[in-house]
Amino acid sequence: ASLHAALDMWERRKLEKAMKLFQHAMLLDPKEPDILTRYGEFLEEYEYDIIGADHLYAKALHSSPSHSKALQNRERTLPLVDELDKSRLLKLDRLRDELMRISDANHALRRIKKEAYFHYIYHTAGIEGNTMTLAQTRSILETRMAVPGKSILEHNEILGLDAALKFINQTLLHRIGQVTLHDILQIHQKVMGYADPDQCGQIRTTQVYVGSHIPPAAYEVREMLQDMVDWLNSEDALRLHPVEYASLAHYKLVYIHPFYDGNGRTARLLMNWFLMQSGYPPVMIRKQERMRYYETLENANEGDVRPFIRFIAECTEQTLNVYLWAT
Amino acid sequence: ASLHAALDMWERRKLEKAMKLFQHAMLLDPKEPDILTRYGEFLEEYEYDIIGADHLYAKALHSSPSHSKALQNRERTLPLVDELDKSRLLKLDRLRDELMRISDANHALRRIKKEAYFHYIYHTAGIEGNTMTLAQTRSILETRMAVPGKSILEHNEILGLDAALKFINQTLLHRIGQVTLHDILQIHQKVMGYADPDQCGQIRTTQVYVGSHIPPAAYEVREMLQDMVDWLNSEDALRLHPVEYASLAHYKLVYIHPFYDGNGRTARLLMNWFLMQSGYPPVMIRKQERMRYYETLENANEGDVRPFIRFIAECTEQTLNVYLWAT
Ligand SMILES: Nc1ncnc2c1ncn2[C@@H]1O[C@H](COP(=O)(O)OP(=O)(O)OP(=O)(O)O)[C@@H](O)[C@H]1O
Ligand SMILES: Nc1ncnc2c1ncn2[C@@H]1O[C@H](COP(=O)(O)OP(=O)(O)OP(=O)(O)O)[C@@H](O)[C@H]1O
Ligand SMILES: [Mg+2]
Ligand SMILES: [Mg+2]
Repeated sequence: ASLHAALDMWERRKLEKAMKLFQHAMLLDPKEPDILTRYGEFLEEYEYDIIGADHLYAKALHSSPSHSKALQNRERTLPLVDELDKSRLLKLDRLRDELMRISDANHALRRIKKEAYFHYIYHTAGIEGNTMTLAQTRSILETRMAVPGKSILEHNEILGLDAALKFINQTLLHRIGQVTLHDILQIHQKVMGYADPDQCGQIRTTQVYVGSHIPPAAYEVREMLQDMVDWLNSEDALRLHPVEYASLAHYKLVYIHPFYDGNGRTARLLMNWFLMQSGYPPVMIRKQERMRYYETLENANEGDVRPFIRFIAECTEQTLNVYLWAT
Repeated sequence: ASLHAALDMWERRKLEKAMKLFQHAMLLDPKEPDILTRYGEFLEEYEYDIIGADHLYAKALHSSPSHSKALQNRERTLPLVDELDKSRLLKLDRLRDELMRISDANHALRRIKKEAYFHYIYHTAGIEGNTMTLAQTRSILETRMAVPGKSILEHNEILGLDAALKFINQTLLHRIGQVTLHDILQIHQKVMGYADPDQCGQIRTTQVYVGSHIPPAAYEVREMLQDMVDWLNSEDALRLHPVEYASLAHYKLVYIHPFYDGNGRTARLLMNWFLMQSGYPPVMIRKQERMRYYETLENANEGDVRPFIRFIAECTEQTLNVYLWAT
């Protein structure tokens, strides 16, 4: 019914109304291929949103793999989207190269690196609900003194992120050789060490849930992690763009969800290890972006990981711009 | 010279002066067997301090094993001192039995147990320099909120002691079977987990120093710990009075000093595990007693462990009296 009303409005050029009706239809029936396909066409035509449209066709094909209209549309959008995605990644490389040309001795660069360090910890702690302000985060790391009115746990989350970043910067980044399962467990151990001494570095032994995602059963986790590590070391993976590689590493880890807690923090640290290895600064996912972060992870669970990679690419671009702007 | 002056004053019955001169002589030459022996005789005669005198003879014999006057004196004092020590331990058993007759449901007993828990953590943290007050310690454990003006480390020391005590109460106390090296490492892991996630549960790998004591070289530590554990499980050890057994366990651990930090806390927890297993309450070594605690450990290093056992026996008696007085 909503779909028909939407199509009707579209025909009558009441585009705002049509848009609302499409969205309403999708809310009622989020996987219905006809709705997804027609809404995609609408987005292409009136918003020139090829990427959004392509994502909807991909979703339609996920529920109905032989939907002919969706297949037909996708054949058109996919090459375009691939081009768009590729050009965005190339742009990131250009920005990164610009940043790498600045001398390490540059005063402004050193300053922004230090600033960004606090920002990073502030956001990656805050995205989950840690209530420390940026100033409090800085004060904790500079003085190691407690902040009145905050729980000890919140302090220890900050200390753990600091320890994990130091571990990556001082140990992992300078190491040659392949990624190991032990590396991932050690990142978790550092990041959760203060907050949860009993579970840090330990793979979970029972089922967990995260939003609508049901991660694999506990007995499968170790093997899946090992597969993930094998993939990280594979030629195929190493041929990817660093931002793709790092984003996929992040996604695979939170998909497996190997730990009782701290999966997000560990995944973001792992991602940043890989990005830094390729000359990128550590990328910030800001608290304000939590909704898109979770939504694009949902999209990945529904079969399309590209929105998540795009999201990380955008965060990378933002971070690079902050660095370049400051220097 | 001081010794002659002291003997001279003694002869002239200027006892205060003689005492001061003896102490002065001992300060100048702490291991001189003649001084130790004559001062011991002085203490016997004018202070009726057989235990103190016996300790001085023991010390004299430690530096000069065939000192005839010391040997002769000791033959007289040792049996007396053994009797005194034994009767003190028997008294502790009587007090403990009195305490054990009080029902676990007794309201006052439950209250004092809870109070004593906070006191214990306050003192065992404070003896090393943690500056939390009793009220702050209680507040941290009851609310898990940070206390303004204190370092995060000081908070984490409190959390670690709480975790270690819970581990002993909930796991070790109800377990049957022998003591293992793993038990000791786990106590250390719990007590240091929050404060030092990197080293907790880990045996040191380099030399350490504590006061005038030089603990064994790192490569010897594991074997010495294993010997200590074998001793803890030996028939000889299990025949000792619980207070002797627990004190010796404490002393052996701090002698080996297997960890970079937290040896004292782990030793006091180990001691209390054993005391609780024998029906004693966890014994408090109060901050105010730090001097005697360290002195009697020094005495043990110098060959006489009995002052340390006596010290622990006194702490046990005090603790028992507090419990009995409160109920
Ligand atoms: N639908 C989803 N599918 C897969 N992963 C998800 C989904 N929603 C959220 N996540 C990931 O799970 C993380 C939360 O898991 P967990 O609580 O173990 O991590 P955390 O580090 O404690 O939290 P946070 O990352 O929020 O700080 C999120 O950060 C995100 O990375
Ligand atoms: N001369 C000594 N010989 C052996 N052990 C000693 C000596 N002096 C002190 N100790 C022990 O060493 C402990 C200090 O060692 P360490 O700092 O590793 O332990 P801690 O738990 O951090 O400190 P503390 O016990 O003071 O809280 C003291 O508590 C005491 O038990
Ligand atoms: Mg979490
Ligand atoms: Mg110490």
